[in-house]
Amino acid sequence: MKVAQVLHMNGGVGNASYANNSLVQEKVICLTKPIREEAITSLYCNTVPRSLAVADLGCSSGPNTLLFVSEFIKIVEKLCRELNHKSPEYKVFLNDLPGNDFNNIFKSLDSFKEKLCDEMESGIGPCYFSGVPGSFYGRVFPNQSLHFVHSSYSLQWLSKVPEGVDNNRGNVYIGSTSPTNVARAYYEQFQRDFSLFLKCRAEELVKGGRMVLTFLGRRSDDPSSKDGGYIWELMATALNDMVLQGIIKEEQLDTFNIPQYTPSPSEVELEVLKEGSFASNRLEVSEVNWNAFDDWNTLEFESERSDTLSDGGYNVAQCMRAVAEPMLVSHFGEAIIEEVFSRYQQILTDRMSKEQTKFINVTVLLTRKA
Amino acid sequence: MKVAQVLHMNGGVGNASYANNSLVQEKVICLTKPIREEAITSLYCNTVPRSLAVADLGCSSGPNTLLFVSEFIKIVEKLCRELNHKSPEYKVFLNDLPGNDFNNIFKSLDSFKEKLCDEMESGIGPCYFSGVPGSFYGRVFPNQSLHFVHSSYSLQWLSKVPEGVDNNRGNVYIGSTSPTNVARAYYEQFQRDFSLFLKCRAEELVKGGRMVLTFLGRRSDDPSSKDGGYIWELMATALNDMVLQGIIKEEQLDTFNIPQYTPSPSEVELEVLKEGSFASNRLEVSEVNWNAFDDWNTLEFESERSDTLSDGGYNVAQCMRAVAEPMLVSHFGEAIIEEVFSRYQQILTDRMSKEQTKFINVTVLLTRKA
Repeated sequence: MKVAQVLHMNGGVGNASYANNSLVQEKVICLTKPIREEAITSLYCNTVPRSLAVADLGCSSGPNTLLFVSEFIKIVEKLCRELNHKSPEYKVFLNDLPGNDFNNIFKSLDSFKEKLCDEMESGIGPCYFSGVPGSFYGRVFPNQSLHFVHSSYSLQWLSKVPEGVDNNRGNVYIGSTSPTNVARAYYEQFQRDFSLFLKCRAEELVKGGRMVLTFLGRRSDDPSSKDGGYIWELMATALNDMVLQGIIKEEQLDTFNIPQYTPSPSEVELEVLKEGSFASNRLEVSEVNWNAFDDWNTLEFESERSDTLSDGGYNVAQCMRAVAEPMLVSHFGEAIIEEVFSRYQQILTDRMSKEQTKFINVTVLLTRKA
Repeated sequence: MKVAQVLHMNGGVGNASYANNSLVQEKVICLTKPIREEAITSLYCNTVPRSLAVADLGCSSGPNTLLFVSEFIKIVEKLCRELNHKSPEYKVFLNDLPGNDFNNIFKSLDSFKEKLCDEMESGIGPCYFSGVPGSFYGRVFPNQSLHFVHSSYSLQWLSKVPEGVDNNRGNVYIGSTSPTNVARAYYEQFQRDFSLFLKCRAEELVKGGRMVLTFLGRRSDDPSSKDGGYIWELMATALNDMVLQGIIKEEQLDTFNIPQYTPSPSEVELEVLKEGSFASNRLEVSEVNWNAFDDWNTLEFESERSDTLSDGGYNVAQCMRAVAEPMLVSHFGEAIIEEVFSRYQQILTDRMSKEQTKFINVTVLLTRKA
């Protein structure tokens, strides 16, 4: 599996699209706003730049894609009003892998800019948007060309499935029955990938540039702990059931592993420290329910949306489908997809009725050292 | 008709796609290579830049999209070898309207870069690609951020159908039966659009930056001359026949006009002079057969391709379909499309058997004044 080619959210705007199933990711962006607010304010106040180049890495394509950009511009414009400064110029770079649906983003930019201008009564500085395809585990931008880097719920994706996990039978990630070498292989891949990420961004950011990164992670220091990989373990349950019934070949399941690692806070901090280009200013752990609808005030939603609140299993299965379908299709083929997610939904509904199920988010604020 | 929303080449890679019907445009890019070679060489030798920012405006999505970029990098790298310079860094901006198929371009970039590196034995400088959606009749890039701007076969497209052409009955562009106010309205729209284009690019280019622009144009100073609009006049013939047979309503045809103007060399030069930011270094007129296959050495083609040589009417109809279908669909609906192009093909085949039919290209090399 070539991760850079098959790792992308479901495109378009259909039922199983990422665009229609990204409430968890939206919730996470809202939750982590204070840390970005701090980062943007300190960046602006320390440098008073005439031009601000910001990048969102792993921007995807859906209602969340421009959330960060909108927030960034609003915060800077508010500071400009307060300090009686002229608005700067914004260079906005939206990055994701080449398989991402950039067309969809590009078609929405005009109305996005109009809406933003309307919301900010006294106008905003000129904004120049571009789409930049490519893996962030490599150079994406010219030397010292960025002031601010944001990435939310992307960095848990590895550049590839780690080598040496051939014995991870019946699992698709680090599961409770995975041999110990599996967790080690995943962690080492995370270390290589994240340290390369830091090295590349260190070259691309100006001195004093800020970076706010949110990982899907875990609290526990034990990589096989439930808070990191339980959601994948339940997907493995669905796939194992299908193996037992002869719908999927055992060998097919045994050779399928997810290119993801959900790091703990200390694993993130350690890599930052070892790589050495960034000062770590703040680290926060937050959580969001698997069924993101649970966290919102029902009254805020129009009735159509609140109807779906009750079916948590469906919501979570759709959320995971939007994220994982292209990878599953690439490995198992189209034919089994409906069946996998129908079984997965039942399993999720059952588990969610019996326990509190949450995603853990690890957020760090880093500053490029001078 | 909102031009920025409906003006885009046919997407995808199907039979009627621009990607499969852009040989004319490819031919034009090849024909105009010497003028770009001169521009790139003089830019490089006068400034010896460590970083080169180049933009292709109206890059579209197909085999031509990266032709200019490839040529640009090869010329610069060759100069670096000759002068024993280190390769610069390339920032490549691919621009088109938001409806363009950027996804298709982005998916091809990795193999493009690999191929380019293989071709240039001693490697090339780092390349950073981005896609920049937006109309070039407005600001697209930050102040003084570009060294070189290229645009081929895009600038004949106007920002909108000119106002005051309601009486252009039975025509879709300036035709032999168009009232005189129609040609004037089209010319004035061209003047407004092209002068705005120059003003925006003047802000975006560094002093001394170069621009090479190729228009689909005409030789004659008479805007209703055959060399400018004959191809559209023949499309109007097909549409008029369908009006006579009651397939299209007369009113529908009367309200359809193409947002295009094919300027003469002196009209282009006059706007450059009037706007004032650019020195005009060179102007050239070239031509290419409507059926671009005619111009190529048959032996160069694999048999499959040379089979189609014989059916010029088909080739030209497909070429025009790739360009005009989205606009026609937006105005007349999907249902009539096959019929229009089938009739158009017959008319083209007939005319091409009786006369020499050529597109006229006007190319200018401009330098941003200090």
